[in-house]
Amino acid sequence: MSLGKNQNPCTISFDDLWEIWPTLAEDERLEWFEQLDHNDAEDFFSSIPSEDQAFLLQKMSDRNTRYWVRELAPDDAADVLQLIDDTEQRERVKNHLQERVRKEVDALMAYKEDEAGGLMSPRFARIRPDMSVDEAILYVRRQMRDELETVYYIYVLDKEQHLLGVVSFEDLFKGNGNRLISDIMETDMTTVGEDQDQESVALLFAREDYFALPVVDAHNVMKGIITIDDIVDVVTEEATEDIQKMGGMAALDNDYLQSTFSEMYKKRIGWLSILLCCNLLTTRVMDHYSDAMSSAVILCVFIPLIMASGGNTGSQAATLVTRAMALGEIRLRDVFKVFKRELIVSSSLGATLALIGFVITNICNFAGMFSDVQERFLYFAGTIATSVGVLVIYGSLVGSMLPFLLKFCHIDPASASAPFVTTIVDVSGIIIYFTIARLILGI
Amino acid sequence: MSLGKNQNPCTISFDDLWEIWPTLAEDERLEWFEQLDHNDAEDFFSSIPSEDQAFLLQKMSDRNTRYWVRELAPDDAADVLQLIDDTEQRERVKNHLQERVRKEVDALMAYKEDEAGGLMSPRFARIRPDMSVDEAILYVRRQMRDELETVYYIYVLDKEQHLLGVVSFEDLFKGNGNRLISDIMETDMTTVGEDQDQESVALLFAREDYFALPVVDAHNVMKGIITIDDIVDVVTEEATEDIQKMGGMAALDNDYLQSTFSEMYKKRIGWLSILLCCNLLTTRVMDHYSDAMSSAVILCVFIPLIMASGGNTGSQAATLVTRAMALGEIRLRDVFKVFKRELIVSSSLGATLALIGFVITNICNFAGMFSDVQERFLYFAGTIATSVGVLVIYGSLVGSMLPFLLKFCHIDPASASAPFVTTIVDVSGIIIYFTIARLILGI
Repeated sequence: MSLGKNQNPCTISFDDLWEIWPTLAEDERLEWFEQLDHNDAEDFFSSIPSEDQAFLLQKMSDRNTRYWVRELAPDDAADVLQLIDDTEQRERVKNHLQERVRKEVDALMAYKEDEAGGLMSPRFARIRPDMSVDEAILYVRRQMRDELETVYYIYVLDKEQHLLGVVSFEDLFKGNGNRLISDIMETDMTTVGEDQDQESVALLFAREDYFALPVVDAHNVMKGIITIDDIVDVVTEEATEDIQKMGGMAALDNDYLQSTFSEMYKKRIGWLSILLCCNLLTTRVMDHYSDAMSSAVILCVFIPLIMASGGNTGSQAATLVTRAMALGEIRLRDVFKVFKRELIVSSSLGATLALIGFVITNICNFAGMFSDVQERFLYFAGTIATSVGVLVIYGSLVGSMLPFLLKFCHIDPASASAPFVTTIVDVSGIIIYFTIARLILGI
Repeated sequence: MSLGKNQNPCTISFDDLWEIWPTLAEDERLEWFEQLDHNDAEDFFSSIPSEDQAFLLQKMSDRNTRYWVRELAPDDAADVLQLIDDTEQRERVKNHLQERVRKEVDALMAYKEDEAGGLMSPRFARIRPDMSVDEAILYVRRQMRDELETVYYIYVLDKEQHLLGVVSFEDLFKGNGNRLISDIMETDMTTVGEDQDQESVALLFAREDYFALPVVDAHNVMKGIITIDDIVDVVTEEATEDIQKMGGMAALDNDYLQSTFSEMYKKRIGWLSILLCCNLLTTRVMDHYSDAMSSAVILCVFIPLIMASGGNTGSQAATLVTRAMALGEIRLRDVFKVFKRELIVSSSLGATLALIGFVITNICNFAGMFSDVQERFLYFAGTIATSVGVLVIYGSLVGSMLPFLLKFCHIDPASASAPFVTTIVDVSGIIIYFTIARLILGI
């Protein structure tokens, strides 16, 4: 890529623009976008985030706005329009939509982006219960002209649009032409509430193998359908969000390489600062034990090793529990079950690691690290092994219980990140370590 | 749940059995399973992992084996049979399948479970290019009796089963009855290779909104289809695997609450032991600086704070890069781009945190922590602030480059877990810290 930012734009390929896009100032973007050839522009427009689409649409000439806003599917158009803060601009852009689409978009805009209603498409195939199979096939055929989202399922509605049942296209097609829809429709079906959270909708799709689910309001009036292709995106996005939170940062809004430096900075500095301030506590606690450290510097030498054992087991436990919660495998009421489980597993882990700790201390002894305290070497080894063992159990319990505490306080359990757990374990771990040292070594 | 393990089984509900299942010894499981009523048993059998299905099928009477193995879809049956090690048993179970299914299963068993071939179903709708639309509709209608995986797309094959094109059911249905399939079929389509890795197949589905993709061999002979409902599971599974690895452990085979204690122990102890041994290095390195520490214990007091800053930034960077790699946003060749990005972002992060570090040290000074070294307090504050800043940059670069190194060595980048990065940063961080202290404080 050899295009300088200030060079006069002439033509540019999809790949080149994609590469420099995040580095472009907002008001340069439209100019560059318009240098793409038509096919590249179509691909590009559909690939950029809704925020960027909203920005471009506002800056474009009326003629272009009209063209590009009509390229968007109704649910995408609703997402984009919701991102335009300026009311006048939002109306201008919306008015370029076809009349019929505008109505659909208005209906969709009432939903939040991460609710079932925000994911759904209002374009589904519908029939009446008193039609015959042959009539229904003809009727669906006519609806097909309207770019339906899917004809995999056809929904049976009464005149007030209440959802009565569903017929798969295959069953309709296989059925005897004279039978009534009400006789062949499936009435025992799974529906989604319009304000249901997208994560729980994704879990429904993952558990049962649906291709599409109907969205209904509180009165069982059918509002639209959610198709499984949107769910793949939801599952991927939600996992990415959780992973980033579990890595100790706020979730990014864009791809890694598409994020601006300032976004990257803002999403990362928050937790880093909080954690640094929490670590102020470690220094306070350590200072409290400075006499003990002065009398045996060898105790200091093992601090990182011992803290790390607790932190690492804590990270494992927090990761396991957080993910299991996100997948709906663990609920709040499972807290005692998880506690018991972690207690048993971490006791075995602790015993093993304490043994390794004891061996390590002996290796260090051969390396002459304990020459100053040779006569009391076994006490030191015992202190270190015991501390490793206790901290492993302690770390596991902190790491596994923290997500429950967060969830109980209505905070996303994914905030129980490895760095956060490590920090908590560090602070209290030092107290545990020096208490054990005091008990065994008497310092 | 009040059922004791040794109580004589009588009847049991789905939920109760689900709860005690992981705690049951293998040879008790069949006995309990057979106490379920028929509907619960069907649900239960389809909910347990393939390993457990394989175990039950081996232990059952011929009559039951015949019933339950026929409950499985061909691709699931292939997965289960692959898990039976005893050849004689495997043949016995397989022989209970219907003749036709057995042939499909044999074909599927040639694939690994995590390859495209292992995900696909051989039951797709097929037509010939020289059929008319009306003939094709009749032909597809006949195939529908065979429980096709989907009729959303219908594949056009020549006599040797080469894939020539695809027609959506809607297009077929809308088309003029006399037109030839070869005129209306789409020939420019995305296909999946039979040995393609399931992660890359999932990325294809996520990027474009397909409902199903055809699987072909090297000669473009069509082998089956992969439908999007299986992809939702793949995406969820792969994310869970990555998350668990990034938490510093091997990925579990089962749900958290369904895993046995010994599995949980085995999956966690590996990394914990490795990390503990790596931490042996920290003690060696720290010991090297024990004179410096003796002369100013206050340096020890800040070790956890400084190490944590590097470790936390490193965890963030590793998490970001690993996830972006898993989503295909970053490739090996982006290494310099990522390096530059992390350098810029982490410099700003480092500067901010160094400033906070400086303020923290001043707070500690007011708390009297520096009373022994009051005359040189500013040098100490400078050492700590500089170390925080440098370690933040260093941690970021290590955390972001490690996934590249692992990928380059064909190791899963998700192994660059927060605990692993923290450990690496700890060891080298101590050297950096004491070097800076030596330069500024001259000790």
